[in-house]
Amino acid sequence: VPIAELTRNAVDVLPTGELEKKLALGRPLRVKFGIDVTSPDIHVGRGIPLQRLRAFQDEGHVAVLIIGDYTTRIGDPSGRSSERPILSDEEIDANARLYLEQAKVILSDDEELLEVRYNGEWLSKLSYADVVRLGRIVTVARMLERDDFEKRYRAGEPISISELLYPLMQAYDSVAIEADVELGGTDQLYNLLAGREVMEAYGLSPQVVLTTPLLLSWDGEKMSSSVGNNIPLTAPPEEMFGRTMRIPDSQLEEWWTLVAEQPVPEGDPMQSKLGLARFIVARSHGEEAAQEAAEHFRRVVQDRKPPEEMPEHSLPAGDPVHLPALLADAFPLSTSEARRLIAQGAVKLDGDPVSELDLPRARLEGAVLQAGKRRFVRLNGAA
Amino acid sequence: VPIAELTRNAVDVLPTGELEKKLALGRPLRVKFGIDVTSPDIHVGRGIPLQRLRAFQDEGHVAVLIIGDYTTRIGDPSGRSSERPILSDEEIDANARLYLEQAKVILSDDEELLEVRYNGEWLSKLSYADVVRLGRIVTVARMLERDDFEKRYRAGEPISISELLYPLMQAYDSVAIEADVELGGTDQLYNLLAGREVMEAYGLSPQVVLTTPLLLSWDGEKMSSSVGNNIPLTAPPEEMFGRTMRIPDSQLEEWWTLVAEQPVPEGDPMQSKLGLARFIVARSHGEEAAQEAAEHFRRVVQDRKPPEEMPEHSLPAGDPVHLPALLADAFPLSTSEARRLIAQGAVKLDGDPVSELDLPRARLEGAVLQAGKRRFVRLNGAA
Repeated sequence: VPIAELTRNAVDVLPTGELEKKLALGRPLRVKFGIDVTSPDIHVGRGIPLQRLRAFQDEGHVAVLIIGDYTTRIGDPSGRSSERPILSDEEIDANARLYLEQAKVILSDDEELLEVRYNGEWLSKLSYADVVRLGRIVTVARMLERDDFEKRYRAGEPISISELLYPLMQAYDSVAIEADVELGGTDQLYNLLAGREVMEAYGLSPQVVLTTPLLLSWDGEKMSSSVGNNIPLTAPPEEMFGRTMRIPDSQLEEWWTLVAEQPVPEGDPMQSKLGLARFIVARSHGEEAAQEAAEHFRRVVQDRKPPEEMPEHSLPAGDPVHLPALLADAFPLSTSEARRLIAQGAVKLDGDPVSELDLPRARLEGAVLQAGKRRFVRLNGAA
Repeated sequence: VPIAELTRNAVDVLPTGELEKKLALGRPLRVKFGIDVTSPDIHVGRGIPLQRLRAFQDEGHVAVLIIGDYTTRIGDPSGRSSERPILSDEEIDANARLYLEQAKVILSDDEELLEVRYNGEWLSKLSYADVVRLGRIVTVARMLERDDFEKRYRAGEPISISELLYPLMQAYDSVAIEADVELGGTDQLYNLLAGREVMEAYGLSPQVVLTTPLLLSWDGEKMSSSVGNNIPLTAPPEEMFGRTMRIPDSQLEEWWTLVAEQPVPEGDPMQSKLGLARFIVARSHGEEAAQEAAEHFRRVVQDRKPPEEMPEHSLPAGDPVHLPALLADAFPLSTSEARRLIAQGAVKLDGDPVSELDLPRARLEGAVLQAGKRRFVRLNGAA
C-alpha cells in the first residue's frame, strides 16, 4: 500500500483524509521541504524527513527543495543573536551544494523527481504592501501561540515584529511553488499549518502537512555538530560505525524504526546494534565500506586488538625512557594526563598494562604502545 | 518667548529639553504632520495640531505634510473593516487637494514654509527584507502596549500581523523626510515615539514629539462628520456660527484656550460664546462674514425674527387652505410632522402661533409662514 509507505512513522498528517485526495489527483504531487543553508551538515537525524521525501519520489512525486537564500540573507530575525550569521551569496551557494551532495545519500537526484528552488526568486519581488497583505492572514495571537514564541512572550523576553514575518515568508514559499504537501519535523508544525492558511488566502488548494519525529542521539539529546553527538551522513565509514555503536540498547527500537524503517531484530542487542551501524554506513558508503567498518570496529574496539596499520613513533634518546614524557610526545596528552592513564592501567605495551613510570629501552623497542582504548603507535629505536 | 508659543497647550513635548536643542541648531526645523486622506474634512478639532504647525511656520520652520497615499492604497490593515476604504490614486489626489484647501485656513502656504509629500515616494521602494529590518526595531510586546491594541488583545479580539506594520510605516516616514519634530493628537503618542526609535536605528537624530489635546464637541464627544457634531473649517459662515453657539458654557474656557488661544473673556458667557463664534468664522471667512453671521444668528435664532430674505411659496388653489398640507408642501415635513408642530405652537404666521388646521386664504396671502425656529417662507397668492 503506497500511502502507508508515504506516511510511515509520521507524527501528523493533516488534515485527515486530504493526502488521499491529493494522491487521487493522479498527477505527480509537489512535495516541499525547506532546507537550512546556515548549517548544511546533514546528520542521520535530519535524514528522517528526507527519507519520507524519498518515499514520495519512489512513487513518482516531485521533491521540491527550498533553499531559503532570501531569508538567510536577511539574517537573524531578532537582530540580537550571532548564531544565525548573514551569509554572502557565495556562501549560500556553496552551502546549498554541500547540502545537496549529502542529501543525495537519501534522495534520488533524478531530475524529474528533484526540483531545487531559491526563495529569493519570489520573495525579492514582494513590496511593503505585499507583506501587509500577507500579514493580514495571520493574527498576532495565533502567532504567539507557537511554543517557542509563547514561552518567550510569557517570560517577558523581547520578540521583535520581524520575527513574526519569518514564518510568513516560509508560508509564502508554499504559494510560490504551489506545494501539494509540505514535510518537516514536529517543531515545524506551526509553520507548515501557516502555509495552509496563506495558500488558502491566495486562492490555492492548501498543502497537506506531514511531520516526522525527532531522532535523539545516544545521549538523549537532539543531534548537533557543535555538541558532537551527531552522525553526519557523509562522515567516514569507521566514524559513522563507531558513533552508531554508542547508542544505548534502550534506543535501538526507535533507531531501527526511524532510520532503517524495519522492526528491530530479535535476539542479542549487540548484534542488532551492529546491524544498524552496518545499515547506516552502507546507505552512505556502500556494502563493502560497511563490511570493512564493521571489521575495524570489531578489531579496534570490540576485541581491543591493535589495528593492522598504525603510526610509527621514534623513541627518544636515553635509557631508561620516562613513560609519561613518551606518551605526551606520541599522543595529544599532557604529561599529567599520561600519569593518570598509567595509574588507571589504561596504558599498555603489546596489550599488557604498564604501571612503571620509567622503562628499559629494550622493553620498548618494536612494541605497540597503547593509551586508552583507541590510541596506538608502534615504537621504533631510531632516536 | 517663541518656545512658549510653539508648545502652547501641548500635552507632551518629549524628551524634555530636546526641542530647545533642536531650536538651537539655528536652521529651519522640519516639522512633520501626517494627514488622513481617507477623511479629508477638517473640522475645528482637527485644526488644533495645525495651529501648532502654524506657530512653527511663523518662526520660519518648515511644515512637512505627509499624505499617506501608500498606506491608504493598502487599505484597512485588519482586512475586516469596511470603514477604511481603499482609495484610487485619483481619489487620494482629490482628497489631498481638498485637505490642503481647508488646512490653509490655518497654515501658511508660503512655499518656503510648506512641503507636501506622498509616502508612496519611499515606501513603495521597500522590500520584504527592508520591512524585516524595520520590524527588528520594535518588539511585539511594546507594540501591544498601545492602548488600542492592548484592549483588543486582552479581549481576545483578532489583531492581524499587518496591523503592527502600519505604525512602522508612519515611523519610517520620519526617517525618509528626516523630521526634527512630529506633531499629532494625544492618541498618536505611541506612533510618534516609535518614529523616534526607528530614526535612531537608522542612524538619524530622533525627532521631538509634540502632542496636542483633543477638542471635544458640544455633546462632549469627539467631533465626527458622521455624527454631525463637527464644525468643518470651510462650512458656510452662518452654519459655523450657529454650531459654535451650541457649545455649553462649561466648555467655553477649553474652546477659548485651545481654539482662540486666548483666555476666556470675563463676564457674560453668552457674550463670550458670541466672541468665540466670531473668531472661528473670521478665521475661515474673514471679519465681514463673521459680522454678518453674528447678525444672522441674532436675528434668526436669538431674536427669533425672520431673516431679511427668504424663499417665496405659492399658495395652493382653494379656500380655506389646509395648513398641514401647505406646511408639507413648503418644507421638508410630512403632514403628520406638520400637525405635531402646529399642536406644539411651533407654526407661526407673521410671528404669531397658529392653532387652526384650516385657514382663510386671505389670512395667508403675503404672510411669513414659519415652521420651527429656522424655517421661513413668504406666501404668495398665485396658484
